[in-house]
Amino acid sequence: MNLEEHRLRELLAQLSLKEKIGQMTQLHSHFYQDLNEKAAGQMMKMGVTDEMVGNSGSVLGASGAGRIKKMLKNQLEKNRHHIPLLIMADVIHGYKTIFPIPLALGCSWDPTLAKRASEVAAREASVSGVHVVFAPMVDLVRDPRWGRVMESTGEDPYLNSVFAQAFVDGFQGDDLKNDLNRTAACVKHFAGYGAVEGGREYNTVNMSERQMRQDYLVSYKSAIEAGCRLIMTAYNTVDGIPATANHWLLRKVLRDEWGFDGVTISDSGAVRELVPHSVAADEKEAAMKAIEAGVDIEMGTFCYMHHLERLVNEHKILESRIDEAVWRILKLKNDLGLFENPFRGADEEKEKRVVYCRDHRDQAQKAAEQSCVLLKNSGILPLKQNQKLAIIGPFADNGAILGAWSWRGDPNATETLTAAFRSEKIFKTYSSRGSGILEGNRELLNEAIKTARGANLIIAAVGEASNMSGEASSRAHIDLPECQLELIRELKALRKPLVIVLFNGRPLDLTPLIDDVDALLEVWYPGSEGAHAVFNLLTGRANPSGKLSMSFPRTIGQIPIYYNCYNTGRPLAENGDKKKYVSKYLDCPNDALFPFGFGLSYTTFEYSGLSLAAVRIAGSMSVQVTVCVRNSGKVAGSEVVQLYIRDISGEVVRPVKELKAFKKIDLLPGERKYLHFTIQESMLRYYHSDLTFKSDDGKFEVMVGGDSVRTLHVPFVLSRGRLVLIHDEAK
Amino acid sequence: MNLEEHRLRELLAQLSLKEKIGQMTQLHSHFYQDLNEKAAGQMMKMGVTDEMVGNSGSVLGASGAGRIKKMLKNQLEKNRHHIPLLIMADVIHGYKTIFPIPLALGCSWDPTLAKRASEVAAREASVSGVHVVFAPMVDLVRDPRWGRVMESTGEDPYLNSVFAQAFVDGFQGDDLKNDLNRTAACVKHFAGYGAVEGGREYNTVNMSERQMRQDYLVSYKSAIEAGCRLIMTAYNTVDGIPATANHWLLRKVLRDEWGFDGVTISDSGAVRELVPHSVAADEKEAAMKAIEAGVDIEMGTFCYMHHLERLVNEHKILESRIDEAVWRILKLKNDLGLFENPFRGADEEKEKRVVYCRDHRDQAQKAAEQSCVLLKNSGILPLKQNQKLAIIGPFADNGAILGAWSWRGDPNATETLTAAFRSEKIFKTYSSRGSGILEGNRELLNEAIKTARGANLIIAAVGEASNMSGEASSRAHIDLPECQLELIRELKALRKPLVIVLFNGRPLDLTPLIDDVDALLEVWYPGSEGAHAVFNLLTGRANPSGKLSMSFPRTIGQIPIYYNCYNTGRPLAENGDKKKYVSKYLDCPNDALFPFGFGLSYTTFEYSGLSLAAVRIAGSMSVQVTVCVRNSGKVAGSEVVQLYIRDISGEVVRPVKELKAFKKIDLLPGERKYLHFTIQESMLRYYHSDLTFKSDDGKFEVMVGGDSVRTLHVPFVLSRGRLVLIHDEAK
Repeated sequence: MNLEEHRLRELLAQLSLKEKIGQMTQLHSHFYQDLNEKAAGQMMKMGVTDEMVGNSGSVLGASGAGRIKKMLKNQLEKNRHHIPLLIMADVIHGYKTIFPIPLALGCSWDPTLAKRASEVAAREASVSGVHVVFAPMVDLVRDPRWGRVMESTGEDPYLNSVFAQAFVDGFQGDDLKNDLNRTAACVKHFAGYGAVEGGREYNTVNMSERQMRQDYLVSYKSAIEAGCRLIMTAYNTVDGIPATANHWLLRKVLRDEWGFDGVTISDSGAVRELVPHSVAADEKEAAMKAIEAGVDIEMGTFCYMHHLERLVNEHKILESRIDEAVWRILKLKNDLGLFENPFRGADEEKEKRVVYCRDHRDQAQKAAEQSCVLLKNSGILPLKQNQKLAIIGPFADNGAILGAWSWRGDPNATETLTAAFRSEKIFKTYSSRGSGILEGNRELLNEAIKTARGANLIIAAVGEASNMSGEASSRAHIDLPECQLELIRELKALRKPLVIVLFNGRPLDLTPLIDDVDALLEVWYPGSEGAHAVFNLLTGRANPSGKLSMSFPRTIGQIPIYYNCYNTGRPLAENGDKKKYVSKYLDCPNDALFPFGFGLSYTTFEYSGLSLAAVRIAGSMSVQVTVCVRNSGKVAGSEVVQLYIRDISGEVVRPVKELKAFKKIDLLPGERKYLHFTIQESMLRYYHSDLTFKSDDGKFEVMVGGDSVRTLHVPFVLSRGRLVLIHDEAK
Repeated sequence: MNLEEHRLRELLAQLSLKEKIGQMTQLHSHFYQDLNEKAAGQMMKMGVTDEMVGNSGSVLGASGAGRIKKMLKNQLEKNRHHIPLLIMADVIHGYKTIFPIPLALGCSWDPTLAKRASEVAAREASVSGVHVVFAPMVDLVRDPRWGRVMESTGEDPYLNSVFAQAFVDGFQGDDLKNDLNRTAACVKHFAGYGAVEGGREYNTVNMSERQMRQDYLVSYKSAIEAGCRLIMTAYNTVDGIPATANHWLLRKVLRDEWGFDGVTISDSGAVRELVPHSVAADEKEAAMKAIEAGVDIEMGTFCYMHHLERLVNEHKILESRIDEAVWRILKLKNDLGLFENPFRGADEEKEKRVVYCRDHRDQAQKAAEQSCVLLKNSGILPLKQNQKLAIIGPFADNGAILGAWSWRGDPNATETLTAAFRSEKIFKTYSSRGSGILEGNRELLNEAIKTARGANLIIAAVGEASNMSGEASSRAHIDLPECQLELIRELKALRKPLVIVLFNGRPLDLTPLIDDVDALLEVWYPGSEGAHAVFNLLTGRANPSGKLSMSFPRTIGQIPIYYNCYNTGRPLAENGDKKKYVSKYLDCPNDALFPFGFGLSYTTFEYSGLSLAAVRIAGSMSVQVTVCVRNSGKVAGSEVVQLYIRDISGEVVRPVKELKAFKKIDLLPGERKYLHFTIQESMLRYYHSDLTFKSDDGKFEVMVGGDSVRTLHVPFVLSRGRLVLIHDEAK
């Protein structure tokens, strides 16, 4: 049982100002160890004393049950009130059992799978001593130049919201206090980090409040509504004020409107960065602005430790600002049961059994099978048995397929694609590197060509290195590196069937290669058991069912490109209008090479009979949508049935379509299912120019299909707030 | 003398509702002629009756004194009240004597020159019967994909403002009524059109109100303050509401805050486009939204004509809304003296003498000499005399160097670069096309190579066709077309000195060619006498002095790139920091290939002795900045001395620098001048988060130099609203 509230209040009252400020500071784990000379020097240079470490409230970047227990024990002795430390860590898509990157999980369109992935990550992290994970990242992304698109579930507010909730549910479970297999979750990065200008990491963000509420804030809110316990501020500005100093964002929206009572934490160093951001003249002003805005914990830097006390003494901030922050921090510790059991789930014995166990890896493999997206298939896939295969490319014999944010994952212990093929012994498999990731040479090419010549079919395993996406890995070019394009051209010249398996952390410009290849499987970074998942998919043991969570541009010059865009006043006609004065480029179509929601299967699905019926739900008129989906191919498969709505006319411009619902269904060959969706008035609300969130009477269109482009569509009407069918309205 | 106000009020009172609505409609000139069958059919299809034409208030796209006089005469007979027509036309950078495109004029950093260019355009247009020109275009631009960057003066709010005022002064003069050589100006496109997403024409625009006020609204306001008589609405949305239906923009900002009492006009078709924009269900609602927002004249479409009367009769809009619009239109006609002299400046005889006269063309040539920018020079320029030159490329023998918006200009009558060289007979000049603009072939290449072999030096005249920039000419690629790059590579292989003369309407990605060439002169579209101006510059008869008004990116993946950006919380150090976690790309530097303000000369300028002195101006403390600039080379030259200010810390993030003043000076070899600038508190004001426009106490830095990168700098302080020097503050 955790402390009663009055006991916690008593504790807070006993803390000195220094001690309170300690709770608000997160130090890196190396400060807690017997410091070597270098680390001690660094500590002194930063003005961090032993006393400060003793007072500190949380730790960044520690893991391992044994190590953490020792650290916690030491700290409890140092801390006058024996307040336990919070252990936080960057567990994003798995702890040691690495799942596909979040952008790939988004392509599964399966929130249950995302929830399980987070459960597994929480189980491994908590048994290893971690209390809080810095996930989920729910930033809406529209610019593949940005490296952190790999960490998001993509470009759609609704899809991101569904996943945000699933991730939080998976990490935290229903009973965070008693379920020691769970961790608290920290949703990030609040807010709008995905819109960094030019896709350049840490760059400025600017948009109107209306757009921010309409598109960008939705998924954070979803995570908060799912009960997420912490929220991390973003590095970027929000309308000129860095998120970490943004009173409007952290108090008005987060606390007052959304009623969030959990802990806010800065991203690492973000408080001190208010100085280079040019909104604070020095670290003292940075500390003042961050606490005034409502940042409870400063991560990584020492503005709070060095300046908050003086700011209180100089009456520049009220001590009550500090008390509210410390109260939330203590409450989180209490809610995690740390006062009774500071070690929480940390358990060296269990750690050995649980971490990277077979069951977890099996789940990671299933997740990968659901997350890969088949972008092209001339019919060459699934692979026919007993062929001679050449697996060529820098990812042929490479276990570094875990993606960024997999610090506990071990690429050397991760099965490679070639190894996965060889272990199954169905094919005669040869492999060759052919090229490095960024640089190649003639020798590597020649060797690869030689290997490929002996095969019936070539699998080119190409892509970006893990560290080319993730934090601080923006790219001004989104091509496959030239050396790999050259490799593909040379392989193509052999005139053998050529399948591309693409490892990457962002949508790439596939225009230079897509026409030359017979099939392309987008596998992202598929994680610990990714190679075997890809083997299963290529061979048809598993049927691809992933659908893109982010649009693939035809060229970088189209960026930003996203499906839920606006029509403009001069839209380009879908039939390829040749008019000059329409919204288009002279030298490139407007549409994506592969649109949001797109993905192929080894079977085909036919959509028919989209129809609407008026129904009364909870006293108000709604519309029931029915559609028939039939597996028209020869193998079983899963299909993501997507429902979009278009508002024909609004007070502000409305997107050409918006995802409002989806269902993933399994169909046997020839099987048909009738799916039902319900459209309610609440799904038609949007932010007006005065920021009211409401619907307007008028015409709408519902679209249902297997991607965001090819859909069936039927109109309906909202009349005096009631949903009616067109023929009803006509009466 | 024009009508007294009460007479105009009486006229307004006499008009029927239909007649008033006619004044608010602008028809294309073909409606006023004896219609051929096709045009008559079109008229009927559009529901335009003869009566409507008779009632209409203004005409688009007519010119020629004789033709217009006839049209005006006919119309006066048809109109019951004999209200004269307003003749409006797209005169942007010249009427028939074409000046360099506005982006090039911006590179002159010479507002006097811009004023003269507009004077010339107004003189030619007015004598040809035009009353109103659709210029200046003052949209701030940061995305070279957008075709209309050619029509803007670039990326800086201050530079654009200075030019906005100069253009308006030039078109309108001091006495619009009596000076028949002037036209009314129509500033466009209000507002924010330059920020179309993805650089795609007519696309959505989104930014916060604060950013819009800080960066984008400045230049329109400057034009209005200069007395500009009309303003044109933009095609784009402004925070979700198309400019043409934007009440906030057209009433709150424009009328209430800025006190604009001139005429608002929609861009062509923009009222009807509210329907595809999805803010109006039909044309009737479009008419209602446009009139409510405050659009006085509908250009090109008929929503007003067909629906306003019924909207008044149904009490959906007040007739007073119509009266205020018509009042402004009648007032403009009256202010132009049209009631007394409907023909105004139209004069067939004078037209022959004035239009395209030698003096105008000389002025156009001077303007071109000031507008070209020397981007690279290994020392090969100016050209030594008596060489054998090969002018190679699609612009070698091509008079199509006028740029978009030069409908009255005649490329066939425009001197070509080769002709300019031959006419001067200093060089033995050969020429060859070498390639088309977008497509080449081996034959053309071979011929060019053969021509080039015989020369001592090659001038490659390459670039974009005129219609690759301008309206509806967005490009998703900003390279020089591949066929021309190939031509340059082949020319380079001849190992002869190679000078590039670049004709284009936007910053291009010059990375693929810049290292291979000995010199590069950016000549934009230099206009009617551009070829001779380029000749003068290449030969040193004129010394290049242009400075870029828009940054040139290293690659399209850097877009948007602009000098007055934000520092971010993790700036990339100027010394080329190797840190990972800073704001950068993995594969490209952050900075521009050629920055804003950059341009070379045939001489060099040395900056020294930047110093500050406290001065009292009008009772308040200001800072006088002094800098010494010396011509350290061997020829006379002009230098644009640029003054930037950085606000070290603000309430919102502040740009790394902002242009606040500049002076263009002439210096003889060895000559030095001491320049003085005054910094006043008002120059330090900016929009805060609550949209107040004010300065904050704190540190600043003043930077002075010949471009936006290489500057001298000195700090100063604003203390209690007074500007003080650092050493004063220390006391």
